[in-house]
This record gives sequence, C-alpha cells and structure tokens, in this order.
Amino acid sequence: MKTKRSKGVARFSISLPSELAGQLEQMTRDKGYDNRSLAVADMIRAHLIEHRQQFGDKEIAGTITLLYDHHKQHVQAALTDTQHDHHEVIIATLHVHLDHDNCLEILAVRGKAAIIKRIADELIAARGVKHGKLTVTSTGKDLPP
Amino acid sequence: MKTKRSKGVARFSISLPSELAGQLEQMTRDKGYDNRSLAVADMIRAHLIEHRQQFGDKEIAGTITLLYDHHKQHVQAALTDTQHDHHEVIIATLHVHLDHDNCLEILAVRGKAAIIKRIADELIAARGVKHGKLTVTSTGKDLPP
Amino acid sequence: MKTKRSKGVARFSISLPSELAGQLEQMTRDKGYDNRSLAVADMIRAHLIEHRQQFGDKEIAGTITLLYDHHKQHVQAALTDTQHDHHEVIIATLHVHLDHDNCLEILAVRGKAAIIKRIADELIAARGVKHGKLTVTSTGKDLPP
Amino acid sequence: MKTKRSKGVARFSISLPSELAGQLEQMTRDKGYDNRSLAVADMIRAHLIEHRQQFGDKEIAGTITLLYDHHKQHVQAALTDTQHDHHEVIIATLHVHLDHDNCLEILAVRGKAAIIKRIADELIAARGVKHGKLTVTSTGKDLPP
Repeated sequence: MKTKRSKGVARFSISLPSELAGQLEQMTRDKGYDNRSLAVADMIRAHLIEHRQQFGDKEIAGTITLLYDHHKQHVQAALTDTQHDHHEVIIATLHVHLDHDNCLEILAVRGKAAIIKRIADELIAARGVKHGKLTVTSTGKDLPP
Repeated sequence: MKTKRSKGVARFSISLPSELAGQLEQMTRDKGYDNRSLAVADMIRAHLIEHRQQFGDKEIAGTITLLYDHHKQHVQAALTDTQHDHHEVIIATLHVHLDHDNCLEILAVRGKAAIIKRIADELIAARGVKHGKLTVTSTGKDLPP
Repeated sequence: MKTKRSKGVARFSISLPSELAGQLEQMTRDKGYDNRSLAVADMIRAHLIEHRQQFGDKEIAGTITLLYDHHKQHVQAALTDTQHDHHEVIIATLHVHLDHDNCLEILAVRGKAAIIKRIADELIAARGVKHGKLTVTSTGKDLPP
Repeated sequence: MKTKRSKGVARFSISLPSELAGQLEQMTRDKGYDNRSLAVADMIRAHLIEHRQQFGDKEIAGTITLLYDHHKQHVQAALTDTQHDHHEVIIATLHVHLDHDNCLEILAVRGKAAIIKRIADELIAARGVKHGKLTVTSTGKDLPP
C-alpha cells in the first residue's frame, strides 16, 4: 500500500473487481465528475461524516442490514461468530433468501450505541459482505409521542 | 485514468488530497478492513445503491424500521392494513416488544424502488409512529462483489 | 350450555360457522367415522393428551405459530396486548402477510415451560385465531449433541 | 344428525361419554375459551389442517424449528445451502442467538405439503441439528373462521 505524496496530493493504487471498476466508471460519468479520483474523494468524505457521528453510552434500538453471497467462503461463519459474541445486544436476526446466492440479513439490535456501532462496523467490513448499513432508532423510552 | 485488468481484477491509481488520504487510512483501520481497497470497494457499492434508488423502476431490497406505541389508538390496525395492501412486496415483518408500550417493527421488503418508497412514506407518516426509516440495499443481482 | 346426561352419555349442542360444519361432515366421512359425535370425541381425546403434557419450571425455547384474519375485530390488538404483557419471554415475532386477510404470526419464545404454555393457550384461544400451535424445543444447554 | 343452519351458523347436537364431556368442559375453562363451541371449533380446524397434510399437492403454510450449535462444522453452511435451494417456498428465517453456541432457527414456509415435508426432513436430519420440528398450519384460504 505505497502512497506517494507531493504538493498536498497523495497518489496510490487500489484493486477492484473488474465489474465493480466498470460500474464506478459509469457512475462517475453519470454524475458528471471530471474524473474518478474526484468521485472517490466525495464518497470518502460522505463516509467520514457518517463514521464520525458520536455514539456513546446511550441505549438505542435499531437494525443492521447486510447483503452478502452465502457461497463466499467463510462469510456466514464469520457473521454468525460475531453475532453470537454479542448475543446480549442482538435480539434476533431475520434472514431472507433473495435468490440462489444472495442473502438479506437483518439484525434487530438493542444496547449501548457505541457497542452497536462497533458490531455493525465489524459485520459490514467482513469479506464477502457486499453492502451493509446500521439504522438507528430509539428504544422509545426517551422519545415523546 | 489508466486501468490494468487481469483475472477479473482492475488495478488503477487515484489521487486524493493528502489529508483526506490520511483520514481514509485511519477509517480503514478503525472499521477493521484488511486493506484500503476493500474499504473503497464497500464505499463504491454503497454509493451505487444510493445512485440507483433514483430510478423508480429498479428492483431493490431493503428494510423499513418503525418505532411505535401499540397502545395508540388504531396505529397497529393502520400499519397492518397498509402492509397487507402491499403483501406482494413485503416479505416478512419482524416485531420486537421493546417494553410494555414500545414496539420495534422491521419490514423486509423487495420490489420496485418507487413503490417501496411510497409504502415507507405512508407507514412512517401514520399517526402513532414515533420514528421510521427506510434503509435501501440491492437485491444483490446487479452488485458485483 | 345445557347438557343432558343419561346412562353415561352426555348430549349437548354446539354452534359452528356453517362452512366449518360442512367441512367437519366431509372429514367425518373421509375418515370413515359412523357419525359426527365419534369424530368429535376422538378430537377431544387427542387434545386432552396434548393439554395434559406436564409443563413445569424447566426453561425451554420454542415457537408459537398463529394463523388469523387481521380484519376480525380486535384480534390483533388482543394478541399484541398479551404479547407485550409477556415481553420478557417473547424474543421476537415474525409476521407474514399471507394474503389480503390472512396473517401467519410466529413468536420465538424462551422461558419457563409453564408460563409459555399459558401464553400459548391464551393466544390460541383468542377469538379470531383460526389455528395455533406451540412447538417446544430445548434451549440447547441440556441437550447433548 | 340433524343440523339447523341460520345466518351462517350451524347448530347441532353431539353425544359424548359423560366423563369425556366433563373433561372437555374443564379443558375449555383451563384454556380460557369463552364457551365450548369455540373450543370445539378450534379442535376441528386443527384436525382439518392435519387431515389435509396427507394430500401432498395441497398448499400449506407453517414453520420449521431447528436447534443447533453453530460451531459444529458445516452445519450452518449445509442448512443455508438447503434453504437457498428452496428459496421459493421459504419466506424468511428468524435466527435467535440463544447463547454463545446454541441457535434457534425458525423458517416461515409456504408451498406444497409434500415439498415442505421433504425440506423439513432434510434440515432436521442434517448433522449438527440437535432438534427440529415441522409445524403445519393452513394458508388460511381453505379454513373457515
């Protein structure tokens, strides 16, 4: 992961599955970016904003939505291991078999915000997970009608 | 924007402001990714999903998360009526009894983006629903690994 | 609910929805019973056996499966009230919208056998519930592999 | 076997051995039914469902309940493979993490009785599954209130 830095610009290379690289090209054009680097920079900034949201001691409820191909080696075992390590905050998991390959997995969670954020990060970063999202709501106790 | 492709993997370089590159490195580590390429790939897929939401005819999967007090008059009957009216796109609903009053209800959905968006709007706007959120993901078919 | 008793036989009348009475007639013939009373007696005996299973202090896990028409007045409100009264043993409820009218509701439960049996009885006996069943399994702790 | 029908309700009398009639009374009260007719109606519907299971082509709904230790090699992969092979009849799967090792997995299913019976047999017989059970109900369409 060599990174060249000069005049405030860092240049480095990344590897993507070819099909994903092609769809990035297409989206870059669709959205009217001058080049791929500008599009990627915008994505990174958007994710930094989400990443920095403060998650503290407060009790929250919510869902973690995961999309993955269950044929990818070890992905399901890894996800289940992580979930059982935290079975005290994961109420139940709804698994939908979208087709022969793709799984939609939805975790109903409840616990301290910081812990739930960390579990969500771990699950979403797992190899084989195509897309994941943490959706936060309240436990209702502190939310007036 | 030269891209080398081999064995299904595309390798290319991107340029980022140095500070942004540094923060990407940090976030990659924080979230537990094995390397920067995997983190960037996940961001691209997340943005592809959002980008495609704009096209109403596209098939998406996702979740609708609702928080409500089931004692509020008619709220549950209203939510169930709406859901049954659209039982062809609502796969299943996971209901968690958070406490004596508060319900966390999570709908697994799949269908045309525009229809799902409309159902979510209707459910979230229903009297008695304290908080609601639509989380969109892909059906996995159009999302490369 | 007048019941006439003579020579060890009790005779009383029951009211059933016409369509159900018709299907009882058909099943009585299909199964080769000489008359309806004999068929009903066999059903009652089968239910007595299930009813008398001992349910004690032991912790069990299991599911309660309910089939109902959500349009029947108050059925859903009644079911939800009962469930929230026991939210400490009901882990989560999976609701499937079978069609415009019929709901399949599956409760994942965990707790003392006697309490779960009582909740199941209450839910299954609720007016508007067409069919219900308690399926008992173990929490796995006391079950060798 | 005279049956009076009026306004969708059929009224007829049945004869039972006195002792059985007494025990029916007791069970009706124990289970919290408002009256004997409602209790008998529920029994008839339950038996109709069982009776129809024998006809393999009939569409049924139901649940498959599985208890397993997710650490047992391959058990989860095997269960998921089987489930995806039949994703057209498995509506959704609810997974509860009972503790660090034990999983309670509940499948909501709908389809031809014979197919669902075969899937249940395969899942329950899988190595690593400690206990499994198929609970059959109706799709509600052919079951009068």
